[in-house]
This record gives sequence, structure tokens and C-alpha cells, in this order.
Amino acid sequence: MKAEIIAIGSELLTPNRQDTNSLWLTGKLNELGVEVAFKTIVGDRRSDLVSAARIALSRTDIVIFVGGLGPTEDDLTRECVAEALGRGLKRDEHIVEWLRARFAERGWKMAENNAKQGDIIDGAEVLPNKRGSAPGQFIQVDDAGGSATIILVPGPPAEMTSLFEEQCMERLRIMLPRRHIASRILKIAMIGESMVDKRAAPVYTQYKDVETTILAGTPGEVQIHLRSEAEWLDEAQKKVDAVAAELEDEFEDSVFSTHGETLEQIAGYYLQMRQATLSVAESCTGGMLAERITSVPGSSRYFVGGAVVYDNTLKSELAGVPPAVIAEHGAVSSQVAVALAEGIRQRSKSTLGVGVTGVAGPGGGTEEKPVGLVYVALADGNKTEVVERKFFGDRDRIRHWATQQALDVVRRRLM
Amino acid sequence: MKAEIIAIGSELLTPNRQDTNSLWLTGKLNELGVEVAFKTIVGDRRSDLVSAARIALSRTDIVIFVGGLGPTEDDLTRECVAEALGRGLKRDEHIVEWLRARFAERGWKMAENNAKQGDIIDGAEVLPNKRGSAPGQFIQVDDAGGSATIILVPGPPAEMTSLFEEQCMERLRIMLPRRHIASRILKIAMIGESMVDKRAAPVYTQYKDVETTILAGTPGEVQIHLRSEAEWLDEAQKKVDAVAAELEDEFEDSVFSTHGETLEQIAGYYLQMRQATLSVAESCTGGMLAERITSVPGSSRYFVGGAVVYDNTLKSELAGVPPAVIAEHGAVSSQVAVALAEGIRQRSKSTLGVGVTGVAGPGGGTEEKPVGLVYVALADGNKTEVVERKFFGDRDRIRHWATQQALDVVRRRLM
Repeated sequence: MKAEIIAIGSELLTPNRQDTNSLWLTGKLNELGVEVAFKTIVGDRRSDLVSAARIALSRTDIVIFVGGLGPTEDDLTRECVAEALGRGLKRDEHIVEWLRARFAERGWKMAENNAKQGDIIDGAEVLPNKRGSAPGQFIQVDDAGGSATIILVPGPPAEMTSLFEEQCMERLRIMLPRRHIASRILKIAMIGESMVDKRAAPVYTQYKDVETTILAGTPGEVQIHLRSEAEWLDEAQKKVDAVAAELEDEFEDSVFSTHGETLEQIAGYYLQMRQATLSVAESCTGGMLAERITSVPGSSRYFVGGAVVYDNTLKSELAGVPPAVIAEHGAVSSQVAVALAEGIRQRSKSTLGVGVTGVAGPGGGTEEKPVGLVYVALADGNKTEVVERKFFGDRDRIRHWATQQALDVVRRRLM
Repeated sequence: MKAEIIAIGSELLTPNRQDTNSLWLTGKLNELGVEVAFKTIVGDRRSDLVSAARIALSRTDIVIFVGGLGPTEDDLTRECVAEALGRGLKRDEHIVEWLRARFAERGWKMAENNAKQGDIIDGAEVLPNKRGSAPGQFIQVDDAGGSATIILVPGPPAEMTSLFEEQCMERLRIMLPRRHIASRILKIAMIGESMVDKRAAPVYTQYKDVETTILAGTPGEVQIHLRSEAEWLDEAQKKVDAVAAELEDEFEDSVFSTHGETLEQIAGYYLQMRQATLSVAESCTGGMLAERITSVPGSSRYFVGGAVVYDNTLKSELAGVPPAVIAEHGAVSSQVAVALAEGIRQRSKSTLGVGVTGVAGPGGGTEEKPVGLVYVALADGNKTEVVERKFFGDRDRIRHWATQQALDVVRRRLM
């Protein structure tokens, strides 16, 4: 079963307004085993809306129109859907009376344009709106032209969600074959998107009934989304889990998360599990590493703190880097990364210490030490490892890659 | 001129992912006087994409396809647009060579599936992608079937925006009738959106030919967008400037930026102008304040560094807070904020020192010191000021508000 959601309103075609109703509706339709194949956003122009309705009816089984049910001249959904279906529109006087009473209850006289909210498409069931004035409509078409289900719901989110939940879900559930959907998200660190696809394709192309999507996440993260449908949830879950297991074998410890967790959450889990604590001394990432770690609620249980050491004297003052090491090797060097990691670990008495130094750009690069060159060191009191990487992109991307590398080094040490 | 934006990707038809590129593109098209009449979101299914392309070509003058230009099996935009246009697709070996070199530069061997990113629709101009591997394409159709402009751009926002800005805007401007649009963005710190609207409405409602939009920016920032069109740029600019001037009078020094600059940029300008330097010691914001400051290229000229002092012992160790002050007043107190500001200023020998402490939540709140309570202090060697605030929202919002408050305190001191 394929559905199309049509969001109606010229304000949704401006640079500042987003259709968000369709995300909620997509979740509900997916629960029923219905796939959303298209979303269309159209303004309040009659010809555009009629054409969008005709196209949707020709290509999907269920069409949901959201918005354009109010009392103003711009609210054209009722008329346009009737025209696209070739059906009439009749005013339901019971609804008009109900509207009049609703206004009276608030001490107002109803403006006559409100009466058009009682216009009902021939053959439609009326879906009363508990939270607003515009009722929804539910239409089953089953004639020579084909069969389809058409639903009209109001645009304000509170009205839309309660009306759809209470009056459409059960009607749809009865109509639809029983389906269950299982899904999984694998997240992979420090491998590029095309390389992930190349290595994943031999696996996922063998499983035609598991839908696989590969997505670039934040810099240094690629996500593999798996999704499967079946009559029973167990069955769908088994299919998804089988593909996930094979992909985990392929990517081994590059897979850092199998249920949607972020890398900072995973690093936090490992730190707690090992009863370890962490401190960081960061130069080029300028606080972004600490910020990512502390974005996780409860991170104070394992994160002691850190130093943002932009200026060289502060590298010595806060993280104990010997000035001679900076003078000899330069601030961007593996030696300084090591000294930062060891120094901050000692100062903060944490189990692990991380040091990051590099050239985030756009300025400051040299031939020997170009923009994107980053050193990440990890000290645990016994040995200190250091990783040299060259990242690409703008300042924000390079900084993000560097924090990703640092979190990944911590994760791998504790794994 | 009417345009349609087609966003491509099955992930955009899930409950969790939103197409946001189209908002930015709509702003750019509006600048050129082009109205967006439809937005369509379609998945990675060949037949759906070909049909969406045909429909768009039949109803609008400019069709922009966003996404689906990568190297994976799911990336079908090139093939599908060629099919909808009835044109061929040829591999451009120059692009493949460029791709191979791009991989080699990073020390990788190119996976062969990447070569398809060099497939060019007959008659298309290639739009080189400076930030990624998939080039865009620009096609002018002018034949018996009608005329249309078709643009293919990659989906990652950084690639899409730079490619469209640098390579599509001028091409479109030449094609389109000339009109002049002037715009301004005023940014206001630390006042809520509804209060801004209440105070701004008496001004902007008097100017019918200046379009005014009030938008909530990041927490602690509200933007007033002003826009006017006229035959001559001077004329449009005058109208916008008149409204901007009246609004600046109304909001006085709460307006921190009048040409789109961020608060961290503005704070940086002032620091450079006064030849002052800054250091920070932050607890609840966990590095976010340093991160925002250092996100500005060249910030090393005025930002010395800072300490992220999650653990109390680190507040003393790195920022010199006397343990007795913490014991007496608690870590979240105006006294600790003051000691952090003064301590980090001394350690780092900067002109100004900022201290931030608070309860970011979701846990850790008490009746006396609830979630959202934040103290921000600023020390300059003579006097130290401290601000107490209570912010609302989730952890991320509270942390963001707190960094906004800190940057605003710095800005106001230097103003």
C-alpha cells in the first residue's frame, strides 16, 4: 500500500515555514504498514491543487490532504478534491448548526463564511473535529476508475493529530492487510560513505525484502538504515537482524552503534562500564570535543573536564605541556598532542586523558602542516597512543572530524 | 516564473527526516523573483522519480532536483531525469579522472561505483562541486515540447548551497526579468519571540510595502527579516532601511547585529577593536561557549582559551576557585561564577575572563537551585559583574541560552 501526503498552504512554500505534520502522519502510516511514496506541498491556487489531487489519485492508494479546510477564501481543499474526483459538494446543515452553536457558546456571532466548513463531498463520512471548527472527511472510492481512500484533515497540528488518531487509524486498520515493520540503524565511524556502500552492497543486495539506505551523518559518521515488513513483527525483526548481523561482521569494530546511539553516548557507556573517567585538552577543536561529551545527560559521572588551549602559554599553564616541546616540534605536532593528553590526565586525575591539536583553517596552514592536519593522543598512565590524520572540508567539518576521531579513539581503547 | 523543487531520497519519506534544503532554495529563488509553486518529495524508486520529473516539467518553468547524485545504487537522479527528458546520458571521462585524482589526493583508491558521478545528461552544463564529489548539472530545454530550465544539485546542504550560490544564481539572473530586492536582518539578543513581535508590530504594520518576518533563531536570539522590492535598488533599500532604523530605536542595544552577523562574530569584532583578549571557565555549558567563540575563523587573535570544569576539584585546579567558596556556596552560585571568571582571567593573563555555572538538567535540580538556573560572571581586573538567570527548555536549550547570555555580557561590556 502506497500513500501520498499533500500539505496545502501558500505559507508552506515560503523560505521560513516547514510542513511538519507529514512527519507525524508518516509515522502513523508506517505503523499500519503503509509506505509514504510521495509528499507534495502545494499553495492555495485552485488549478494547482486540483492537478496535485488528480496526480496523487493516479499514483497511490491512500491520499491524505492536510490543511485548507478553514473558512477563508484561501481554503479550497474541499472544492478542489471534489473537482478532482468528479463529485458534487453539498452543505450539511447539521454541521452549520453545530458551528453556529460553537460560536454562540463563546459569545460570538458566526460570520457567514464559516458555513462553508459544512460543505461535504458526495459519499464522504464526516470526521468531527473536537479541537477546532473544520471537520475532516473520509472517502472510499471504489468504481470503474479504480479504488482509493481519500482523507481530508485540518492543518493545525493539535487538530490534525487528535482527529487522525481517533477517527482515521481504526478505519484504516480495518481496511488494510496486517503488516508489521521492523527497523535498525547501524552507525559507522571514520569510513567514507562510498566505501561503506561498496563494502555493504554485497550483503544487502542479497536481501531483497530488507530495504537498505546508506546515509552520511555528521562528518565521520555513516548510517545504514535497515527496514523490513512482514505479517508478524517477529518475522520482520528476524529479517532485519540477519542483515544487521552480516553487516556487523563486515564492518567489525567500525560499527559503533546498532540502535541509534550517538558516538558520544557510546563512549560514555563504555567509560561508565569500565568505571573510568575522562579529561580532554583541545586546541583546534576549541571546546567542541568537551561540548559533544557533555551534551549527554549524566556525563558528569565520567567526564571530569578539560582545557581549551588556544594560546601556547595556556597549553603549558593548564595542561602542563613543557614549553620546550612546543618550541622544538611546533604547537601542531604529535609530541604536543601526547603532552596535552598526559598533562590534562595528570592535572585532572582522570583514568584517561585526550589531547587534540591541529590546523582547522581556513588560515594558518603551511606546506609542512596543511589545513586539516590533526593529531589526537590518548593517555592512560601506561602508554600514550597518537593518531595523525588529514581531514578535508571547511573549518566546521575539520573540527567535527577531529572530535569524531577523538571519541572513536576513546571508544576503541575501552571496547 | 514558477518553480518546483524535487527533494529526492527515501530517507526523506521516513518519520525522522525532513527536507530542509528546499527552504534555503526557496529563499534564493524568491530573491530572483521566482515563486515556488510546488515541492515534491520522492524516494529512490526509479518509476516514482521519473513520473515526478515528468509532472514537474509539465507544470513549472524551473525544476530543481536535489539529491540522488551520489555513487550508490540508490542514486538515480541522473538516469531518471534523462529518461523524463527523453535524452541520453554519457560518461564524462574528465570528471572520472578528476574524481580519481580527488581520491588519490586523500590516499585512497577510488571505488569504481564512483565513476557514475561523471554521467552527464545530453546537453547539460557541468557544475563543478568544490565541496564534494558529485557535480551538478544545468540544462536549458527549448524545443517543440516547450521550454524549461532543469537543475540538478547534490543533497548535502554545504555542497548544495555553495554550488547553487556560485554557479546557478548568475545563470538564472541572466535568464530572468530584472527586479531589485533589498533586505536586512536585525538580530536581537535575550528577548523572547512574542515580546519582540509585540514591540515590533506598531512599527512594521505601518509599512505595507516592506515584508517583515519575525523568526526565532537559536535560543536567546530573535531575528527580524525585512524585505522590499522595487524597480530600483536604491528605492527598495531606502524602504527597508527606514523600517530597520525605527526598529533599532525601539530595541536599542538589544539589537546586536544588523547585517546577519552571529553574536560570536560581533563579540569577536568588539574584542579586536578594543585590542582585548578573552578567556572562559565554563561548567554547565561544558565547552559550548568556547566552541561558539572558536567557530569564528581567526578567533585565535582574541581568544586565549579556557577551562571546562565539570568536576569541582578541576574548578580549583584549572580556574583557581578556592575550595572553601564551593563548600560554602555550592558549585552553582554567583560566588563560584565570580571566582571562575577572576581565576581564569588571571591564569590566562587575558583582558577579560568569563565564568559560567548552572544546572543544565535534566537531573541535578533542587528546589533552591532548579534546572535552568545559570550564573554568568565577567571579570576585567577592576570589577566583576555577575548575572543570575533562569532559563527554560531541555538541556541543549538551557546550555545554548547560557552561552548566549555570556556572549551578550561580553558584547555589552565592550560596546
